[in-house]
Amino acid sequence: MRTVGIIGLGLIGGSMAIDLKRRGFAQKVLGVERDSIAAEAAKTIGLVDEVVNYDACIQGADILVVAVPVSAAVKMVPDILDRMSPEQIVIDVCSTKSQVCHATQYHPRRGRFVSTHPMAGTEYSGPWAAQPGLFDGRACIFANSEESSPEALKAIEEMYGVLNMRPIYMNADQHDVHTAYVSHISHVTSFALALTVLDKEKDEKHIFDLASGGFSSTVRLAKSSADMWVPILTQNHDNILQVMDTYIGKMQAFRDAIATYDEDSIREMIDQANRIKKILR
Amino acid sequence: MRTVGIIGLGLIGGSMAIDLKRRGFAQKVLGVERDSIAAEAAKTIGLVDEVVNYDACIQGADILVVAVPVSAAVKMVPDILDRMSPEQIVIDVCSTKSQVCHATQYHPRRGRFVSTHPMAGTEYSGPWAAQPGLFDGRACIFANSEESSPEALKAIEEMYGVLNMRPIYMNADQHDVHTAYVSHISHVTSFALALTVLDKEKDEKHIFDLASGGFSSTVRLAKSSADMWVPILTQNHDNILQVMDTYIGKMQAFRDAIATYDEDSIREMIDQANRIKKILR
Repeated sequence: MRTVGIIGLGLIGGSMAIDLKRRGFAQKVLGVERDSIAAEAAKTIGLVDEVVNYDACIQGADILVVAVPVSAAVKMVPDILDRMSPEQIVIDVCSTKSQVCHATQYHPRRGRFVSTHPMAGTEYSGPWAAQPGLFDGRACIFANSEESSPEALKAIEEMYGVLNMRPIYMNADQHDVHTAYVSHISHVTSFALALTVLDKEKDEKHIFDLASGGFSSTVRLAKSSADMWVPILTQNHDNILQVMDTYIGKMQAFRDAIATYDEDSIREMIDQANRIKKILR
Repeated sequence: MRTVGIIGLGLIGGSMAIDLKRRGFAQKVLGVERDSIAAEAAKTIGLVDEVVNYDACIQGADILVVAVPVSAAVKMVPDILDRMSPEQIVIDVCSTKSQVCHATQYHPRRGRFVSTHPMAGTEYSGPWAAQPGLFDGRACIFANSEESSPEALKAIEEMYGVLNMRPIYMNADQHDVHTAYVSHISHVTSFALALTVLDKEKDEKHIFDLASGGFSSTVRLAKSSADMWVPILTQNHDNILQVMDTYIGKMQAFRDAIATYDEDSIREMIDQANRIKKILR
């Protein structure tokens, strides 16, 4: 039976801890959490069997899960590879994949690292946000999986199988292009929307009273934490800027069509946008 | 007992028909639907007791609900006021309020018109999208209600009470400013997001595979129909342009901060955006 060590007991790390233990993949789950309030909460909630320090976690776990912001992960994964034994496996669960894959590319133990992105989450963060079943039915990206040893890859595929995730294999750089479009930009548009409304509606009661379900769902991601998103937006810099430029261009086209009462153009853009119906239920 | 006539059997009109009948406010519900396929569907689903023509509806109903796109409503409400008897009441349920209120302002029967905006809906349209309970617990705006006769206003307040809506009273022009911020802009940002992603991701399978829950919720409103939204965006022209300019400015500020790796500014903007947490659950 295995011991899984989870470094970073936030939404993702905490939710993994719950299901890996409940579903019998891990006999024991160790957790590392730098923030003392979050660590205390993780203990109280019972997310993990034991909250330990970083060194003890590396010594005690068969599989190490790095679930910290991407800026920290990029240094932590090579450090763990340096220090762990050849039988251990380390994975990351970050939202950007290029930098962590580049940082480990020539490491002599590269084979024991499996770089993944379980595409699940909510706008909430911290151990309080962890929940069972978070990953069920969602996609998990394996980035540059050919650089992992077949044995390590198989063990982690099994782990995500227990979490009921659909595996998708992808080049790390390609992953970062795609997620810029289908995840990162959504967060920026939500942040900008929240700022726009908060700027204008000084009377917060109006927002509360009038917000339609549509507004709430569009602005929901604006609740996401800076600790997670500042590193993602700077790491995926090039791709995100390209998406943002395309996006700002579309907004500008809408603006111009509305400004000139060009109903045909507005209709054409909406009809085109409606094609998203065929792809997303 | 009352007969309610609903002109336009789409999402809003159809959902009203269901609950006004089920909950006993209307003894009989007449419906008018110009589109023959939608009319046939409304009959098949049993949304209304009878699908009739426009003239018959005006003759047969005690309360007339105008639930057509805002560009049509602005002509239809004065026409109904011209033709109905002094005991009847007409209401509109449009998403913009200024134009319809201005168009009826000096009508000799203005008192028999109650201008409302039940703030509920989904991204789907047509009689197929109608559902019971759509309005429960949501806000209903009464615009320029001091121009309605107390008796007509009371009857319509009672009607929305049956639909379990919270009444909010507001000047029509103010309504259009607020909804530009808490509803209309969300639709434009979703349309632009869908266009951006569809432009880039020629391979639709990637969108389907990778779309996170966050992306789906941000882009959901992009499924909304051009028939409804072209008139709203052009009618609320001035307010929407102002919101869009603020919004494009916020996006540009984000872009500049990301482009220069200015982590402090990104963090500050995200922290500010997070204030939306306090207002929306």
